[in-house]
Amino acid sequence: MASNVLQVIPLGGLGEFGMNSLALRYGDDIVVIDAGMMFPEDELPGVDIVTPDFSYLVQNRQHVRALILTHGHEDHIGAVPFLLAELNLPVYGTPFTLALVERRLEEHELETQPELHPVRPGDRIRIGPFQVEFIHVTHSMVHCVALAITTPLGVVIHTGDFKIDPTPTDNELFDLHSLADYGRRGVLLLLSDSTNVDRPGYTESERAVRPRFEDILNRAERRVVVSCFSSSIHRIQQLVDLAVEFRRRVAFVGRSMLHVTEIAHSLGLLRIPNGLLLRPQDIMQAPPSKVLVLIAGSQGEPMSALYRVAVDDHRYLSVEQGDTVVLSARIIPGNEKAIYRMINHLARRGADIWYGAMNPPVHVSGHGSQEELKLMLNLVRPRYFVPIHGEYRQLARHVSLAAHLRDQGLEEAFVLETGETLVIDERGARKGERVPVGRVCIDSGSLDEVVEDVVIRDRRHLSEDGFVLPIIAIDKHTGKTEGTPEIVSRGFVAAEDGSGLLERARKVVLRTLESSTPEERADWGLMKEKIRTDLRRFIARETSRRPLIVPVILEV
Amino acid sequence: MASNVLQVIPLGGLGEFGMNSLALRYGDDIVVIDAGMMFPEDELPGVDIVTPDFSYLVQNRQHVRALILTHGHEDHIGAVPFLLAELNLPVYGTPFTLALVERRLEEHELETQPELHPVRPGDRIRIGPFQVEFIHVTHSMVHCVALAITTPLGVVIHTGDFKIDPTPTDNELFDLHSLADYGRRGVLLLLSDSTNVDRPGYTESERAVRPRFEDILNRAERRVVVSCFSSSIHRIQQLVDLAVEFRRRVAFVGRSMLHVTEIAHSLGLLRIPNGLLLRPQDIMQAPPSKVLVLIAGSQGEPMSALYRVAVDDHRYLSVEQGDTVVLSARIIPGNEKAIYRMINHLARRGADIWYGAMNPPVHVSGHGSQEELKLMLNLVRPRYFVPIHGEYRQLARHVSLAAHLRDQGLEEAFVLETGETLVIDERGARKGERVPVGRVCIDSGSLDEVVEDVVIRDRRHLSEDGFVLPIIAIDKHTGKTEGTPEIVSRGFVAAEDGSGLLERARKVVLRTLESSTPEERADWGLMKEKIRTDLRRFIARETSRRPLIVPVILEV
Repeated sequence: MASNVLQVIPLGGLGEFGMNSLALRYGDDIVVIDAGMMFPEDELPGVDIVTPDFSYLVQNRQHVRALILTHGHEDHIGAVPFLLAELNLPVYGTPFTLALVERRLEEHELETQPELHPVRPGDRIRIGPFQVEFIHVTHSMVHCVALAITTPLGVVIHTGDFKIDPTPTDNELFDLHSLADYGRRGVLLLLSDSTNVDRPGYTESERAVRPRFEDILNRAERRVVVSCFSSSIHRIQQLVDLAVEFRRRVAFVGRSMLHVTEIAHSLGLLRIPNGLLLRPQDIMQAPPSKVLVLIAGSQGEPMSALYRVAVDDHRYLSVEQGDTVVLSARIIPGNEKAIYRMINHLARRGADIWYGAMNPPVHVSGHGSQEELKLMLNLVRPRYFVPIHGEYRQLARHVSLAAHLRDQGLEEAFVLETGETLVIDERGARKGERVPVGRVCIDSGSLDEVVEDVVIRDRRHLSEDGFVLPIIAIDKHTGKTEGTPEIVSRGFVAAEDGSGLLERARKVVLRTLESSTPEERADWGLMKEKIRTDLRRFIARETSRRPLIVPVILEV
Repeated sequence: MASNVLQVIPLGGLGEFGMNSLALRYGDDIVVIDAGMMFPEDELPGVDIVTPDFSYLVQNRQHVRALILTHGHEDHIGAVPFLLAELNLPVYGTPFTLALVERRLEEHELETQPELHPVRPGDRIRIGPFQVEFIHVTHSMVHCVALAITTPLGVVIHTGDFKIDPTPTDNELFDLHSLADYGRRGVLLLLSDSTNVDRPGYTESERAVRPRFEDILNRAERRVVVSCFSSSIHRIQQLVDLAVEFRRRVAFVGRSMLHVTEIAHSLGLLRIPNGLLLRPQDIMQAPPSKVLVLIAGSQGEPMSALYRVAVDDHRYLSVEQGDTVVLSARIIPGNEKAIYRMINHLARRGADIWYGAMNPPVHVSGHGSQEELKLMLNLVRPRYFVPIHGEYRQLARHVSLAAHLRDQGLEEAFVLETGETLVIDERGARKGERVPVGRVCIDSGSLDEVVEDVVIRDRRHLSEDGFVLPIIAIDKHTGKTEGTPEIVSRGFVAAEDGSGLLERARKVVLRTLESSTPEERADWGLMKEKIRTDLRRFIARETSRRPLIVPVILEV
């Protein structure tokens, strides 16, 4: 590699949604920014999470100096354990980001303990030819930073995820000044978040949700159950504050909700008055008008806490006539049907349900809209611009949005997709050679089981363990199974191996079906997940193997 | 059945999205209102359309007097051929509705030709103890009616689908007066559309899309391609008028777009000046700045005209750098990912793409929002209210929306789900016995093949023809298949029947893969549909059988 050349190498998240990761290389030194995961598309059965293929980094292992994290969302840190399993790198991030990374690392048994270096906004670190400054940005989570990376050829600004919230709940303002300073001195390249490039205007401040929640709490005569992402600490703080004001005790329900709020609390990022918390197992004993439940599962994941509540199958919480349920989160595209199914279940229980777009809102986005993206472009005034974090349509639109900077020093904007590189040297920037990229599919057990039962199965090993397709015919009208479930398998065990394994697997499926309520049996998405989970457990116990399990439900 | 009892019997569309159908029974006389279809959920592989189970009507065949249609959308007429195949009923509807029904009937060979009776708003017909008046309503399609059904116990108002458009493009105003008359004289029961009950305020007039299209046409220097539902005649008329104004010729592309606009034109519902039309095969020869294309496929259906254009695989149309593409339709929940994939393909071709929420809009809904639903409730002032057309969450919300009528004569509102009945006699209304309902799944070939290749296969006959699962491993990185496709089948042919059928089927799949572009191969939704189509043709030709074909794509 020519020594005076800067390469921008997207490993994930450009031209696709999620699994953000990008490498910067100058000569023989590489730094990696973020290592996220994505949730897979429907078309990919049996896969729980997808991570970038880090082959490029592995092939250049002697050159990779560090991993730098912008913030702790799964699409930025979810693949960190998988990357660190391949390469032992020092990791830089803010304390909350690193605490979330540590939680993920605990689920994996790495051979060597990685070095985690906490940084604060304003800190500058040197990594080989790179100087990295961390710049505070506002987003739907705490402790988020943009990066200003000074290279021998100039400054690269990586925004991370951001919105420009004029009134953040913690009053930690977006650091416009540092970005303005860099902009005035001249920036070589801007890499900027494209998530909300389709939205005109400004994204509302996080505080915009407060009036609606006040209204909801004013009306509610019984339990109020709010579901949001467990990492939305600003949102959770507002709800905790409102609970104090409305004299309700707060219960956190769902593993991720419990863990992440505990981390935030221990770091002083979430203030919870003494005596406010209610244990999940005590919810149903407390007076319904005195309870606010914060629960995981806003995306309709079939095994999540809220979905279990929706089908009245949760250990600690039942939603009853007159309770209020609020979905305080974005509907991630692809999850609509599952979320609406969950809402229908909740409505059948008699709950009053708040969700979707309303004014004032129950949810605001953490990503900047068009005016904020333009403000970022105008502050930084880069010579080159590469939109990041978005599908092709979003990257292309973000490039259009920067058109007005053509006579303000912007020489060129590039739509790069994952694997396409940008090369910058003294003559300027141009697209370079492709690097090998791809996706690694991981089947890690159902999401709720991740901790107790982590078996990471790279789909490359499919040939090893084969696949099992339980095929269930359900009579939609009666909700009953027709005949016995059929099990088709290949590359797993011989159809007649003498032990009658498949025959017993069939019985496992039958048992799962019989132990479900008619309401559950009418919910195909849920049944598939239950069958997969139970069958996985059975097969692991009997054979210690992990075939791919893809339930197919046929209605007859 | 007691002779002085009125029964409301929902056969589809209450507590579920689509396949609207409802029976009214008084003593021994039954009329059926609408017979719609739905598109199936993702969880149901290989199924193209779903219709209500009409067993209740078949069991009571000697009592069923007529089928009355409110309008011609698929979720109201899509199951008509299936119902008429079981019961030879007279059908009442407006001319446009009946023309769409006739088109569907042509695809099926019914033993007896059904009687189709055209009606106009204001017409009254008598069917046994029922007198039915047709009342003009505004909606996203032409010739839509509500029904006022006078029974011996009182009047039942069925709204059909509606919005209350103050400025419809054809100036045919919503008939508020007839509804007001019925309301003043007293209405026993209101059955009202719940589709948009989640939306506050008023739905914008159909005319609201005009400013945005003017803006788009003002900017566009090359081809403008607009996709909307082929039945959106008001929308199409506005675009035709704009084409005249902006001196562009109009090409209709996609079979349903061609057929439905032809029907509307022949009925005088779509005015197209002579010489304006351009044949699809002439599009690419015409000057790009002089062309407006109206194309089917706004929902990202993998075999639709627009999707083929998106992957540059259409006979007559290529989208090129600088062309404009507008999705002028709602995104039906569940279709988001397919639609965004299609938009990404189009963005890669260099198109400027307009879609989603914007102000002014490129699409407005055809269903009334909360204020319109309240206006309907207040005009009709019914004694009983049953919301129709919606999932449980929507029906429950619509009941809440009617709460203010409690002291204006509303005695009770009921959330009924499909199969639950309402019984009304002189003492009043209450829930009655359930009737048998359900869904019938139909695998009719890919949507584009419906006409040439209609083989309707009731999934109840699964045991007859069995199933075939082609399992394809694709390397995401290279886009190439790994090894040869695997084919798993049950109940179809013996694995080794001597003819090597499955071996040849494997080759068919391999050929489909090899003949696809890398861009297509990276689009799993599209590949599944292509494989299913090609394999279906091969198996039908070789065996005259129609097993269920469910492609499974595994990434390795």
